[in-house]
Amino acid sequence: MKGKVNKEQKPLILVVNDDGVDSQGIRSLTAVAQEFGRVVVVAPGGGKSGMSHAITFTNPLRLRRVHAAPDLEIYKTNGNPADAVKLAVRHLLKDKKIDLLVSGINHGANTSASVIYSGTVAGAVEGCLSGIPSIAFSMVNYNKDCDFETGKIVAKQLITSVLEHGIPPYICLNINIPNIAASDVKGYKITRQAKNHWNEKIEMRADMANVPYFWMSGGMEEVDKGRDTDHWAVTHNYISVHPINTDWTNQQMIKELKKWKLTF
Amino acid sequence: MKGKVNKEQKPLILVVNDDGVDSQGIRSLTAVAQEFGRVVVVAPGGGKSGMSHAITFTNPLRLRRVHAAPDLEIYKTNGNPADAVKLAVRHLLKDKKIDLLVSGINHGANTSASVIYSGTVAGAVEGCLSGIPSIAFSMVNYNKDCDFETGKIVAKQLITSVLEHGIPPYICLNINIPNIAASDVKGYKITRQAKNHWNEKIEMRADMANVPYFWMSGGMEEVDKGRDTDHWAVTHNYISVHPINTDWTNQQMIKELKKWKLTF
Repeated sequence: MKGKVNKEQKPLILVVNDDGVDSQGIRSLTAVAQEFGRVVVVAPGGGKSGMSHAITFTNPLRLRRVHAAPDLEIYKTNGNPADAVKLAVRHLLKDKKIDLLVSGINHGANTSASVIYSGTVAGAVEGCLSGIPSIAFSMVNYNKDCDFETGKIVAKQLITSVLEHGIPPYICLNINIPNIAASDVKGYKITRQAKNHWNEKIEMRADMANVPYFWMSGGMEEVDKGRDTDHWAVTHNYISVHPINTDWTNQQMIKELKKWKLTF
Repeated sequence: MKGKVNKEQKPLILVVNDDGVDSQGIRSLTAVAQEFGRVVVVAPGGGKSGMSHAITFTNPLRLRRVHAAPDLEIYKTNGNPADAVKLAVRHLLKDKKIDLLVSGINHGANTSASVIYSGTVAGAVEGCLSGIPSIAFSMVNYNKDCDFETGKIVAKQLITSVLEHGIPPYICLNINIPNIAASDVKGYKITRQAKNHWNEKIEMRADMANVPYFWMSGGMEEVDKGRDTDHWAVTHNYISVHPINTDWTNQQMIKELKKWKLTF
């Protein structure tokens, strides 16, 4: 198992998110991370929700330190969550061993197809690609001033477990937390990603020059009725723990494709 | 199997990419698609490489028709590849059955971890999430005026096969084509995603006000020596056919996590 920490060392923990460095979610997660070790936060200056795993190499990146204390440094960047991780791993902490990456706590769920769109999840996937045990946290509360107390308890428990067990390479964890008081939480569910997708509504409007523009919004279409999914868990007062593969290969389809007998 | 086409109907094919509507790659792919049916192209106005599955919902989207003929319509958008697919599926072709989505031909490989960063692959993943049989094509040639003749032959063969066999739901295909003459191609390989990652170089420079900025670049670190991978195939003159899962769950890790006995 990769990522187990030597208990005599103080772990170095990287914190990222997609809601921006000033969000309540990252502040809550940073406070929890500080209970475990030295913390470096690198996060977008503004919101980068829905940026998925976008990276920035055709424009320059900026990086500015906004807080410096012996056990906590905070940086903001114009980049996306994946850029923030790369700036930390390849520049700021280049010669250091990062023991853990935590991403979030996101303001809102990242279940079903949202796993694919999420910048919060991408932050953890990028950490995983860099060989760091990585966890994404999301709480089903879209309120900017959300109370993250339940989320903080979950983060503390999961960080403890991951520092103890480690996570195998090429896998990271995606945690979703229901928006309820800790006393109402029914427990943990180990889940698969629900096969629900967004059913977008696209609204056409006209600008001041009468040229059309479009706003996109939408709700999740719940086609997957399974009770073993991330979506089912958080909508039924459980904490969802979903293991994500950075290798997207569908092994069953490899067998199927071999039957096609493709010839060039 | 989903996506098999009624042979009496002329298929409706959606073409997207991430290099932009004017790129040589999408022109080549459009020409091939036109041999099969009615074609609608929706693509970014400019390059969106590395934008992964980013979607646009906090800014307005634009969509403009730049070509209109009975069997070929071309639109450009300010959005990313995933936005382009959503604009096509939820707005332009809202009430129509799209028989196939093809994305690319990308100028450059999309193997190993690049699968995760790629806007071309995201275009196919988004099509797949919308229930459309979807194929991403990439050719290992970064030249803007690249000769896509080998790519066009591959696209024609794969489109034929997919229209015949269909693709099961929640799976799409990621095709990588070596940059060689058709006569030098050794054939098809059904592959898994190589476990190679980017090892970025980050270079710090100073702007005119002496404030630092960063350029990111990097090469693939070849840690995966397997001969069954997408990367191995295209670097050994084979065409790689890699089946992608839109469900990222790692089933083995579900069993492992259950042993952790997490309690809230």
